[in-house]
Amino acid sequence: MIPRKPIEECTVGIVGLGLMGGAIALALRKEKIVWEQGRLLACDIDAGVIGAALGEGVIDEGFTVPETMLGRCDVVFLCLNPSTLLRFMTQYMAAFRVGALLTDIAGIKGSIVAAMEQSLRDDLDFIPGHPMTGSEKGGFANAAHCNFHGKNYILTPLARNKPENLSFLKALIHRMGFSRVTETTGLDHDKKIAFTSELCHVIAAALIDCEPDTSITRFGGGSFEDLTRIAMLNVPMWTEIFLENRVELLARISRFEGSLSKLKGLIANEQREELETNLYAVRKRRAAMSG
Amino acid sequence: MIPRKPIEECTVGIVGLGLMGGAIALALRKEKIVWEQGRLLACDIDAGVIGAALGEGVIDEGFTVPETMLGRCDVVFLCLNPSTLLRFMTQYMAAFRVGALLTDIAGIKGSIVAAMEQSLRDDLDFIPGHPMTGSEKGGFANAAHCNFHGKNYILTPLARNKPENLSFLKALIHRMGFSRVTETTGLDHDKKIAFTSELCHVIAAALIDCEPDTSITRFGGGSFEDLTRIAMLNVPMWTEIFLENRVELLARISRFEGSLSKLKGLIANEQREELETNLYAVRKRRAAMSG
Repeated sequence: MIPRKPIEECTVGIVGLGLMGGAIALALRKEKIVWEQGRLLACDIDAGVIGAALGEGVIDEGFTVPETMLGRCDVVFLCLNPSTLLRFMTQYMAAFRVGALLTDIAGIKGSIVAAMEQSLRDDLDFIPGHPMTGSEKGGFANAAHCNFHGKNYILTPLARNKPENLSFLKALIHRMGFSRVTETTGLDHDKKIAFTSELCHVIAAALIDCEPDTSITRFGGGSFEDLTRIAMLNVPMWTEIFLENRVELLARISRFEGSLSKLKGLIANEQREELETNLYAVRKRRAAMSG
Repeated sequence: MIPRKPIEECTVGIVGLGLMGGAIALALRKEKIVWEQGRLLACDIDAGVIGAALGEGVIDEGFTVPETMLGRCDVVFLCLNPSTLLRFMTQYMAAFRVGALLTDIAGIKGSIVAAMEQSLRDDLDFIPGHPMTGSEKGGFANAAHCNFHGKNYILTPLARNKPENLSFLKALIHRMGFSRVTETTGLDHDKKIAFTSELCHVIAAALIDCEPDTSITRFGGGSFEDLTRIAMLNVPMWTEIFLENRVELLARISRFEGSLSKLKGLIANEQREELETNLYAVRKRRAAMSG
């Protein structure tokens, strides 16, 4: 089986050379994982991006249409938005090399797991993944700002994934710099991410939405800046993620609203002791979360 | 008038050697503002803290009761929680050196401005201030982590403040490393801070309150960490600030709830275009805020 050969002997392809695809390409080079000439390929619909990546020596060969490249790759990173990914898989299913190991980076996993369980070509092994990092500045030009070190990576394996491919991919993820790989189901991923990522982005957007005065930052002391950094969001991608995962996200927003309303009530009624008790509990839980 | 002599000739006193008092002492030393021996004094009820500050050479003389020190200082930084500050001023009003320049660091300003307008000794000049920085780790031991460079500082002058003292203090604040000093009224400060600081702390607390699973951080990608760093709050101080400024804070919570509810509705009803339009507007406003 092809991916069992060491990564040093694999041809690796990246589909979509945006922020994350670019950052993965950079990590594979920088960490000397796919280092020798001729084995790091990428395709992107934007010829300018491919030209830049070739010019900087980040990739060895570039393509603006995927068929030829896919037929040569032992390992493929599919770095596309969720809906684009599903369309891409339908359109190019026949083009992948026999026995190739595929993985993606999309922020939604339940629908991708379900689609791949149903329609993946028998000889291919697709391990859905989600690198938990990013940047409020998107695109290949900002890929170098997307840091992998110390970051989380989630995998949501299919029932059919080969154990040796899973081990191979986990080792590769660690070599790229990620510190912790967590395996779970696609649905559990979507539940958790609705909280740690989507809800946080909605809160940041709401914070900006409720204050028209842009000179308010003269009164910023770090908290406001930290809470709203991610309000500089990639609008099409986040709109898609919010809507695709809306059931989980709406449940999380409601739970958050409940907690906010509770604290608001304690403040309104000047319940000093209960407020302190609640804030001490928050402090304790947050400390436990850091561990 | 005493403070018009250059800071190099002033005896400076710090009341309360906690995180901010300690950070101010460190800045006065590190930036070589109060550098020569014998002129940086501090008092704190904790003899251990005074011992540590003396041992590290951060201060020249330390006290656990304030009277003697106050009688010697040309400039005094009052680094106490709001309610403690008001009690301290009442108790020690007679002890300050004639003509001394006083300033504080409390996160609430309306009530302090009102109290000082009414009851300050005629010869003293008290300029209320609020350095917009801090750390989720409190106390003198963490003072070195409290960075002033590039940070905001708010002053809420009294009608009676002497222009030359205001200029003196602003120059001193810039020399300590702060990049921007904004002057406004105490009430306007409290309105703005309710948004940039208090609301952000309530949101961070609510985010932690609504999720009991501490292993959720395996699914963190930076957003959750950024939004909840400040949930490690100094409980007595923040309880006091939330309650003291509750009218402004409750108004800000309500406005935020309105924006959150609007975004929730767009997601629930799958209003893709309206959601995108709102998120683009948020992105644009956040970008304008950075400038």
